[in-house]
Amino acid sequence: MKLSHRAETVQASPIRKLKPFADAALARGIRIYQLNIGQPDIETPREMLDVYANFQEKVLAYGPSQGLDEYRTHLVRYYARHNISINRDDIVVTTAGSEAIVFAMLVTCNPGDEIIIPEPFYTNYNGFATMTGVKIVPLTTYAENGFKLPADDKISALITERTRAILLCNPGNPTGAVYHRSDLERMAALARQHDLYIITDEVYREFIYDGLTHTSILHLPDLADRAIMVDSISKRYSACGARIGCLISRNPALIATVIKFAQARLCPPTLDQLAAKAAIDIEGKYFDRILQEYDKRRNIVYEELQKIDDIICVKPEGAFYIIAKLPIEDADDFAVWLLSNFSRDNETVMVAPAQGFYATPGLGKNEIRLAYVLNEQSLRKAMKLFREGLAEYLNQK
Amino acid sequence: MKLSHRAETVQASPIRKLKPFADAALARGIRIYQLNIGQPDIETPREMLDVYANFQEKVLAYGPSQGLDEYRTHLVRYYARHNISINRDDIVVTTAGSEAIVFAMLVTCNPGDEIIIPEPFYTNYNGFATMTGVKIVPLTTYAENGFKLPADDKISALITERTRAILLCNPGNPTGAVYHRSDLERMAALARQHDLYIITDEVYREFIYDGLTHTSILHLPDLADRAIMVDSISKRYSACGARIGCLISRNPALIATVIKFAQARLCPPTLDQLAAKAAIDIEGKYFDRILQEYDKRRNIVYEELQKIDDIICVKPEGAFYIIAKLPIEDADDFAVWLLSNFSRDNETVMVAPAQGFYATPGLGKNEIRLAYVLNEQSLRKAMKLFREGLAEYLNQK
Repeated sequence: MKLSHRAETVQASPIRKLKPFADAALARGIRIYQLNIGQPDIETPREMLDVYANFQEKVLAYGPSQGLDEYRTHLVRYYARHNISINRDDIVVTTAGSEAIVFAMLVTCNPGDEIIIPEPFYTNYNGFATMTGVKIVPLTTYAENGFKLPADDKISALITERTRAILLCNPGNPTGAVYHRSDLERMAALARQHDLYIITDEVYREFIYDGLTHTSILHLPDLADRAIMVDSISKRYSACGARIGCLISRNPALIATVIKFAQARLCPPTLDQLAAKAAIDIEGKYFDRILQEYDKRRNIVYEELQKIDDIICVKPEGAFYIIAKLPIEDADDFAVWLLSNFSRDNETVMVAPAQGFYATPGLGKNEIRLAYVLNEQSLRKAMKLFREGLAEYLNQK
Repeated sequence: MKLSHRAETVQASPIRKLKPFADAALARGIRIYQLNIGQPDIETPREMLDVYANFQEKVLAYGPSQGLDEYRTHLVRYYARHNISINRDDIVVTTAGSEAIVFAMLVTCNPGDEIIIPEPFYTNYNGFATMTGVKIVPLTTYAENGFKLPADDKISALITERTRAILLCNPGNPTGAVYHRSDLERMAALARQHDLYIITDEVYREFIYDGLTHTSILHLPDLADRAIMVDSISKRYSACGARIGCLISRNPALIATVIKFAQARLCPPTLDQLAAKAAIDIEGKYFDRILQEYDKRRNIVYEELQKIDDIICVKPEGAFYIIAKLPIEDADDFAVWLLSNFSRDNETVMVAPAQGFYATPGLGKNEIRLAYVLNEQSLRKAMKLFREGLAEYLNQK
């Protein structure tokens, strides 16, 4: 039977393509170091897990569609610590960051409307755009300069009468690039000039290195109407399985509408919200240690990559990803080869070809994304395998 | 700033309209018996809550987009008990039944395509239709005959070239109506004749009385291509806050596409799936008792309603709702009046006006939905208040 047109066109996960090859490697007894996915190995805070253990209610009931009052009250405190001043009513708790992006697209765009997103971008934005009928217009950025935002005229050239928003992931997945205050001010000026929304995905807010501080879109003045911030606890507290995020805006009409969509799906998970609330209480002491750990990992990956001839890669300032342009033709082929034809002492490494993060055909073909989510020892081993694998791959071509 | 057209048109929860009046009543010190919402008071099985308490992993990680293998394996066993023979690969675990409905709409319909749904229907279908750009075409059913499905010609008359599916909620929220095997066979014949999908929302499967057995769309032969079943654990295990549902189809191409949409949002909540798995193990002994309890409540509500002159209401065979047509003009006005102008010993009752469950303007204006989700003592009290309130309301008009 015929499926819908959007069903036929929705993008399959580009990372999933590698799974059969990984399964085959595992079946041959090969150990795989996974640098391809963003599942951190960091332990979820004990205080969060204790919430699940200590739940005393007899009925696991619906919460409010907007999110539990007590959790939203805690979120106000969390954001205040990051110098973001909001009210509880500015927040809608969502089922992870994913749902927040979908809501942001639904309330800003009609089907066929356009959102400008710097590419390479988080590949799942494609899926959300297909769901909501939004057209993503890619704004190409480049490995050579660390994926900086292009000049204004490059951006203005993409704006049409259907453009409704600019979406920025800051710090960026998959690039690790950080947009600074001056970048955001420039985007805000463009948004005002062309009457656009600015949607920022700030789920990696704390993952920022070299003593830099993070600028949120909510730090900027005079953007109450047009700023929409999307957040998630998944990476922050290594609680990816909890599925808690939020959407924040100081535009009351926009929030009122998001709540209407939220009412249709009744509520986000109840217990996960209570766990997320507990994480806010302990966050300072938890996160300092985590950040040091990720910084160490970043340095390891970057230093190892620098040992490779003809690699193009600027040290990223945030998140836990790095994109490198390799002296190869086809990163898809290389990633499959690592799983299928390469091993050292029955071990190999899995990387994410970057092409799936670009919307412009042909771009990213010789780039890969690495997620530094393994502990130091595993990461050093993985990077050694990566370097040796690349050398052998280049040699046998 | 301008919001999208769909943002401006998405339906606010019709039940939410009453909240300010309920809040005001609470502020005056009035106790409210809530017959307006489907939040059961039944305890969540201890065995489910124990899963949260005994979680031993150190990282609360992502699960697979399709759902945890171990949970889907258990679901196969659950459905086998209901004589529904499926494979693990036929199942996509979703974030509650809500997401399953959205996925079903996305894969069957393009924006502007139509789904026929018997009205009155679960009001949140409207929100999902707005999200996905689907047009709901209501097939009116009537309180007078217990909301039975109309004759074929009434249904055929609604089918256009944009019709893609018939959606049936069985047993029905808000009607409590049960579609029997002969009903489903009739719908299946229509679906084959007009090349339509049949989507069934079977979240109340077990809530079926008078010794009847439930017929699932998956019981019917030769529908593998076109049958899509949507399910949820929320009511079954009184675990509304857990947000676990699923979509099931024996059409592999359809499931492959649902998985692509599911990949965009990564995964449903991890711990909630493990809890849902535990519920399957204990279900038989848990549910028998629950069903007796709900049957008792159904009888109380129905008998109390029968004491009212000029009421129209057929005893429902399933779910835990009942719709009654009252000898009044405007159920909205009556519901507000109960909260604002009526009380006995500082107590009143809250009901859901049924108009919000109809898509055809003007229908349901003198109907209310009652959810019998209170224990016997509270329910008897609530129904007494309801009868006395109605008498006083009629008297003072």
